[in-house]
Amino acid sequence: MVLASELAQGLGLALAGEDRDLTGVNTLEAAGPSDLSFLANPKYAPQLAATRAGCVLVGGPDQAQGLASALVSANVYQDLAKILHLFAKPQGDMTGVSPLAFVHESAELGENVTVMPLAFVGPRTKIGPGTRIFPHCYLGEDCTLGRDCLLYPGVTLMAGTILGDRVSIQPGTVIGGDGFGYVPTPAGHVKIPQIGRTIIESDVEIGANTCIDRAALDLTQVGQGTKIDNLVHLAHNVRIGRNCLLAGQSGLAGSTRIGDNCILAGQVGLADNLTIGDNVVLGAQSGVNHSLPDNYRGAGSPVLAQGDYLRASVGVSRLPQIMKQLSRLEKDVEELKTTLARNMNHE
Amino acid sequence: MVLASELAQGLGLALAGEDRDLTGVNTLEAAGPSDLSFLANPKYAPQLAATRAGCVLVGGPDQAQGLASALVSANVYQDLAKILHLFAKPQGDMTGVSPLAFVHESAELGENVTVMPLAFVGPRTKIGPGTRIFPHCYLGEDCTLGRDCLLYPGVTLMAGTILGDRVSIQPGTVIGGDGFGYVPTPAGHVKIPQIGRTIIESDVEIGANTCIDRAALDLTQVGQGTKIDNLVHLAHNVRIGRNCLLAGQSGLAGSTRIGDNCILAGQVGLADNLTIGDNVVLGAQSGVNHSLPDNYRGAGSPVLAQGDYLRASVGVSRLPQIMKQLSRLEKDVEELKTTLARNMNHE
Amino acid sequence: MVLASELAQGLGLALAGEDRDLTGVNTLEAAGPSDLSFLANPKYAPQLAATRAGCVLVGGPDQAQGLASALVSANVYQDLAKILHLFAKPQGDMTGVSPLAFVHESAELGENVTVMPLAFVGPRTKIGPGTRIFPHCYLGEDCTLGRDCLLYPGVTLMAGTILGDRVSIQPGTVIGGDGFGYVPTPAGHVKIPQIGRTIIESDVEIGANTCIDRAALDLTQVGQGTKIDNLVHLAHNVRIGRNCLLAGQSGLAGSTRIGDNCILAGQVGLADNLTIGDNVVLGAQSGVNHSLPDNYRGAGSPVLAQGDYLRASVGVSRLPQIMKQLSRLEKDVEELKTTLARNMNHE
Repeated sequence: MVLASELAQGLGLALAGEDRDLTGVNTLEAAGPSDLSFLANPKYAPQLAATRAGCVLVGGPDQAQGLASALVSANVYQDLAKILHLFAKPQGDMTGVSPLAFVHESAELGENVTVMPLAFVGPRTKIGPGTRIFPHCYLGEDCTLGRDCLLYPGVTLMAGTILGDRVSIQPGTVIGGDGFGYVPTPAGHVKIPQIGRTIIESDVEIGANTCIDRAALDLTQVGQGTKIDNLVHLAHNVRIGRNCLLAGQSGLAGSTRIGDNCILAGQVGLADNLTIGDNVVLGAQSGVNHSLPDNYRGAGSPVLAQGDYLRASVGVSRLPQIMKQLSRLEKDVEELKTTLARNMNHE
Repeated sequence: MVLASELAQGLGLALAGEDRDLTGVNTLEAAGPSDLSFLANPKYAPQLAATRAGCVLVGGPDQAQGLASALVSANVYQDLAKILHLFAKPQGDMTGVSPLAFVHESAELGENVTVMPLAFVGPRTKIGPGTRIFPHCYLGEDCTLGRDCLLYPGVTLMAGTILGDRVSIQPGTVIGGDGFGYVPTPAGHVKIPQIGRTIIESDVEIGANTCIDRAALDLTQVGQGTKIDNLVHLAHNVRIGRNCLLAGQSGLAGSTRIGDNCILAGQVGLADNLTIGDNVVLGAQSGVNHSLPDNYRGAGSPVLAQGDYLRASVGVSRLPQIMKQLSRLEKDVEELKTTLARNMNHE
Repeated sequence: MVLASELAQGLGLALAGEDRDLTGVNTLEAAGPSDLSFLANPKYAPQLAATRAGCVLVGGPDQAQGLASALVSANVYQDLAKILHLFAKPQGDMTGVSPLAFVHESAELGENVTVMPLAFVGPRTKIGPGTRIFPHCYLGEDCTLGRDCLLYPGVTLMAGTILGDRVSIQPGTVIGGDGFGYVPTPAGHVKIPQIGRTIIESDVEIGANTCIDRAALDLTQVGQGTKIDNLVHLAHNVRIGRNCLLAGQSGLAGSTRIGDNCILAGQVGLADNLTIGDNVVLGAQSGVNHSLPDNYRGAGSPVLAQGDYLRASVGVSRLPQIMKQLSRLEKDVEELKTTLARNMNHE
């Protein structure tokens, strides 16, 4: 429980109206009298009148008018994130190393490391202080994990994987699995052993059931602060820059590199061996088969620059009409030819 | 082992020809003399002559002609499903709570609950009677599972997940993982803690390695009787109505809602914050970036209504020809202009 | 550690220049003085001058010129794969059957089988000699595994799954989960029990978090030597021929069959009940809704033959221009009609 006035003081916000005891946060539609709610997207402003929320975090004093209790913020989403950190309860009610976990005798665990029941920590693996390993995680041999990482249930780190600090990984994700590399021979496809490593830098967060393959040689790398969603596929030797956002079900083929601050919407596919610049933004379901410069914005498969994509999409939807126009024009031109020919003969 | 006559009596079918001992069910092509087979799709009718099946479930007395033994049904698929339930052997030869499972002392297990070795049941989680938990499942704290649920190996329910009755989940699926929510700040992307819940209503069935994220706030919800295939991604705050079918590798971005009785074919993508009506049918690989009314049928990316999509697809395949037609027309029109100008000058 | 001269002798290669002690393999860019590197793709030839590699595997004597130490090969990738097998260290530093694994008393384990801690081996399952089962794997009842298979952590084989010899499966993959089969009834979708089997033939390799469903009836089958990448979805009754390559995130709907030596690039989707021939090659993100003959090469959604796809893609990108051309032509033709009509009236 926290008072609205305490939030105001802690975050430097103005409290407009009454003070309130708050026990949770919810949407304008679902909030009750002991909940804080918020208005970030003006599209939901009409819901202010009807909300039962005890207090509402709003973007300006005008929005506070008519509310019994409001907190006025210059950046609603940012302050909302801070407030939610107060209300969010960490998962997994356990600390310490469970006797039901398997921890190899040569593993090195820092202070306040948690290893929950049924997790596996392999030989020579080092885990930084404060890191929490949930049940059914597998950490192969010779892994290195930084401090305050969070590995939710069933995360697999294959041998030699390196995580920075504060890396968080949702359930079922696999890091350091073998890349898809084969040599065609008359006797069939022969595996190219994948002996490279995988490095996930600090402050990276990864969703559920995502796969990040180890390098064939050298390195697969995800840069600091990058966030990756569920069911994403990063093939061997992929390198992702810093502070990128990769949405669900996107896939990057082998050795493709993307720069810093890129955004890939859902189900995007990038072919192998491409170089994608910084600040590139790709729309959902884009398919990219050539390298892209800094600041490129595009969509479609094959990808087109944003404006071209929108115009081409309109074009595709008009194709039935375009074909009709063409037929009519061909007929018209034939008639014109005939008329003109007759006309000239007639002369 | 069951007699064809027993099936006939139990399901109210007519037995045409001899009675038979049946030990299994298989396709017309693969069935042997002690198997029941079936003809549901008339395309396979020519296989009736050659089948070695002991007995065939058919859709009418005419199809039974020439067969030594047949069961005549008014709804072959429906009766087939019923018969298969007789032959299907439940997996996992175990009952009771294994001493090799971790079950927190505060968890509450109903009658006839099975928890197999190496599963994890967290604090305060309640499991309804008859529910079966396979090895390597993780049930976080404060989950509630209804009766007769089936959680195959390696299913993860994060804290607070709620399942109705008879929910069945294939291996490796993750429910209640954190949604993909970040606020951009000068210091990088800051996580918006995901404090909402996930509710899976009764009779929902979910495939393998699928991900259903918990809500940022409020609720992610899958409605009663909906069936979801493998590798599907449902982002935070998604709401799916009742009796929908979502095929493999489809993905729904945050806060999108779909109504009842919708069908999404494979690899469909829906953008965030959309409202999709009831009875909507979307073809494979559709990409949807705007809300859709009830009864909409469409396909393509961006999505078009079904007829438009088919015509536009034909148009795309004809684009090379269209470009040639255009060039020829331009040339013709130029010639016409020239001819006409000369003609007029000539006058 | 190995000498370059030993590699030369073992593989029948020519050593040009000095002999070297080698402890690893890396890219031209990342290799150090004790590493072997290689030049397979001529695009990287300029890096030869600057590499710090101790020795370089090259494709001809001309490429060896200027290098202090080189191995000359007639097939660089093939010899590289052989050399990497020498340097690759198998993962999982364990042998024998761990007392922390669950192995049912009726399971039959061949010689030199490894079952690591926290793995589960069900009743009557048979494991061939030399096969290694990592932690958190689940082998349901009545499975049969051949010799020298490798099941990385968290692999699930549902009851009755059959693996040939030398099958290797990356973490989190699910084989034999129930297919997505329902009968619509007035009371909702009724499950068709999935009682068929799954057979993975010898020398198949499967990536991480992939799903291969058991058959409804009869068989789901992956043919000898086929390699499958991460996050691939094979629905019930799919049959894949021999020596195919299926790249990441591709999906095949129910009962579709593909022949031998096919290549599916990433994110390809195949509709149900199709028959795809031998040697078919499909580009990334292809969507296929009809059967395809042997040797077909195509791309796009809906799929077009390769040349048609490239031309149609150009056409789509030119659609904005095409629409402008059409408008101008329509105007021109209208003017021509007017002019001609006036001209004729004028006569």
